[in-house]
Amino acid sequence: MIEEAITKKLDVKFLLSSSNTIRIADLGCAVGPNTFDAMQSIIDVIKLKYQTQVLPASPMPEFQVFFNDQPANDFNTLFKSMPPKREYFAAAVPGSFYGRLFPDSSLHVVYSSYALHWLSKVPEDLEDKNSPAWNRGKIHHASAGEEVLRAYAGQWADDLSSFLNARAREIVPGGIVVIVTHSIPDGMEYSELANGMMYNCMASILLDIAKRGLITEEQVDAFNLPTYAASPGEFVSVVENNEYFNIVTMGESNPSPWLTDDVHVDMNEFVSHIRAAMEGMFSKHFSREIVNEMFEQLEARLSEISVEMESAYKDKIQAFYVLQRNDSG
Amino acid sequence: MIEEAITKKLDVKFLLSSSNTIRIADLGCAVGPNTFDAMQSIIDVIKLKYQTQVLPASPMPEFQVFFNDQPANDFNTLFKSMPPKREYFAAAVPGSFYGRLFPDSSLHVVYSSYALHWLSKVPEDLEDKNSPAWNRGKIHHASAGEEVLRAYAGQWADDLSSFLNARAREIVPGGIVVIVTHSIPDGMEYSELANGMMYNCMASILLDIAKRGLITEEQVDAFNLPTYAASPGEFVSVVENNEYFNIVTMGESNPSPWLTDDVHVDMNEFVSHIRAAMEGMFSKHFSREIVNEMFEQLEARLSEISVEMESAYKDKIQAFYVLQRNDSG
Repeated sequence: MIEEAITKKLDVKFLLSSSNTIRIADLGCAVGPNTFDAMQSIIDVIKLKYQTQVLPASPMPEFQVFFNDQPANDFNTLFKSMPPKREYFAAAVPGSFYGRLFPDSSLHVVYSSYALHWLSKVPEDLEDKNSPAWNRGKIHHASAGEEVLRAYAGQWADDLSSFLNARAREIVPGGIVVIVTHSIPDGMEYSELANGMMYNCMASILLDIAKRGLITEEQVDAFNLPTYAASPGEFVSVVENNEYFNIVTMGESNPSPWLTDDVHVDMNEFVSHIRAAMEGMFSKHFSREIVNEMFEQLEARLSEISVEMESAYKDKIQAFYVLQRNDSG
Repeated sequence: MIEEAITKKLDVKFLLSSSNTIRIADLGCAVGPNTFDAMQSIIDVIKLKYQTQVLPASPMPEFQVFFNDQPANDFNTLFKSMPPKREYFAAAVPGSFYGRLFPDSSLHVVYSSYALHWLSKVPEDLEDKNSPAWNRGKIHHASAGEEVLRAYAGQWADDLSSFLNARAREIVPGGIVVIVTHSIPDGMEYSELANGMMYNCMASILLDIAKRGLITEEQVDAFNLPTYAASPGEFVSVVENNEYFNIVTMGESNPSPWLTDDVHVDMNEFVSHIRAAMEGMFSKHFSREIVNEMFEQLEARLSEISVEMESAYKDKIQAFYVLQRNDSG
C-alpha cells in the first residue's frame, strides 16, 4: 500500500524540474540494517515509476539519501554497515527530527519508522510533584489517571505538530512523508495492550523494590517513559489541524514479531529485546543493580500473565501513514 | 587571500538562482575542531558579500555543510563536538574524495585542507619486487631512485585528476574549490625538507632493526608511505590539463608549527604529533614492538640532525589554491 501510494502520488517529472536529484531522508534511522532495505525499496519504487511512466528515454535521476538520528546515535557503525554498492549518495544528519534538519524545499521523500512514538521529552507536568499529573506508582500513562494520559497525549500532539511544521519547510510541494509507527486501536485503553501490561509490571517490580527500601517511592513516581502510541484518530486529527499535509493513505496492522507459531510469545527473547531497547532510559534514573533486578524479575512476572499478553499481541499496534505536502504556506 | 578570492569570484546571486541554499563541503574533515572554524569562516565571507554587495534587502540564504572523510573516520566524535549553535544544516558524507560523493551540480564551495597529499594507494610499481621502482631500503621517495619518484608523482597526478573530475560533476559552474595542502618549493628535493629527513631517519632505524634480525630488509623495502607533497608547478600542470577548473589565485607559505621562538623545534612534541598521525600506517605493516621501538628511537635520531631540521622548517611547505569551475563539460 505504501508502494502504491508513492507510485500514484509522486510526480517525479515535476519534482525534478529544477534538478536531476531525488533527495530522500530516513528520520530515526538507528544504526541499520533495516534503514538500508527501506531506502532501497523507496528508490526501487521511484525508479520503476520513472522507467514505466515518466520519461523512459531520459537519464535516470541521481539519488541522495540522508540518514538521520540523534547526535548520540552510533553513526560510525551505520557507515561501516552501509551497502558498499549502493545506488545513492549517502549522508548522515545528526539532530532531533522535532526541529529543522534540512534547508528549505530540499527533500522529496521522508521516511520514519518506529521513531515518532518517542516524545521529545517527558511531559513537564509529570515532573511537578504538586501537579495532578504527578504519576504516583506508575512509569507510564497505562492505568494512570486522566491527567497523566492528557499530559502524554498533549506532548505527543505538540511533538507531531513540530515534526510536521519542520518537514513542511524542508519538503517540496508534492513531496511525500511515509510514517510507520507504534499505534493503538481507536477506543482501546493502553493498559489492554501488551506494552501497557509490561509497563505496569515494571512499575510494580520497582514499587516492590521501594518497599525493601533500596529506592524511594518518589523515585518511581518521578520516572516516566517518554513514549506514546497514538491511535489513528489522534494522528489524523493532528495532521488535519496542520495545514501543510494531506493524508494519501493510511492503515493499521499487527506486526506480531513475538508470536511464535502464531500463538505463543517467546518471553525470554521478548524481554531481551525490550531490555536492549529500554535499559538506557532506566539507567539514567536508577542504579545498575536496580535496573538489573528489574529486568531479571520481568520475565517471571510477564510469564504469569502470558495468556493476557499473547491475546493482546494480536491487536493492531502498528500503523502507517502516507502524507503529501500540499501547495500552501 | 582565500577570503578575497571567494569574495571576488563567488557570484552568489547567480548560484542561488534555482534555490536559496548554499552548499559547502569539507573534504577530509577528520574529527574537528579545525573544520568548524574553516566552515564558519567561509560562511562569514559569503554572508558579508551577500549583505554588502548582492541583495541587502532579500533574506539571507540558508547554508548546508557536508563533512566528508573516509568511512573509518570517527564521525561520532565529530558530531559530538559540533558547535551547538551553528548557522548551517550539518551532514556527514563517508567515502573517498577521489571518487564521487555528491549528486551532479549540488555544491557551491568545496574546501580541503591537508588531505590531498594522501595518495589513494601506494603506487603499484612500488609493490613489485621486479620493478625498477622497488624501493630498496626506503619508505618514501625522499633520497630514492628516479623511478620511485616518478611512480609517486604519477600516482599523485592521477589522484588529483580523479579529484578534479569528480568535483567537476558535483560543483555548479562558478562554484569554487579551496585547497590548502602540504607543498614543496619548485626545484627542491624532498630529502632537503624536514619531512624527507625524517622519513630517511625512519627507514634507517628500520634497517638497523632488520640487521638485528627482528624484521627482514624486504619488509622495509615493501613498506612505502602513501603521501606526496607536490610543488606548485606540478599542481598547476594537473589543473591546466584538466579542462574544468581555472586557477583564481594561489600562494605558498611557511606554517612553522614546530618552530618555537622562531628558531628551535620542540622535538618531543614534534615526534608525538608525527606518531599520532602516522602510527596507524606503520602498524598495518609492522608489529607493535617494532613500531614502538621505531618511534622511541626517532626523537634521538632527529635530535642529532636538529640543526638541518630546523633550517628546513623555514621552507615554504604549505600551499593554497583557489580554483573556479568554468562552464565547460
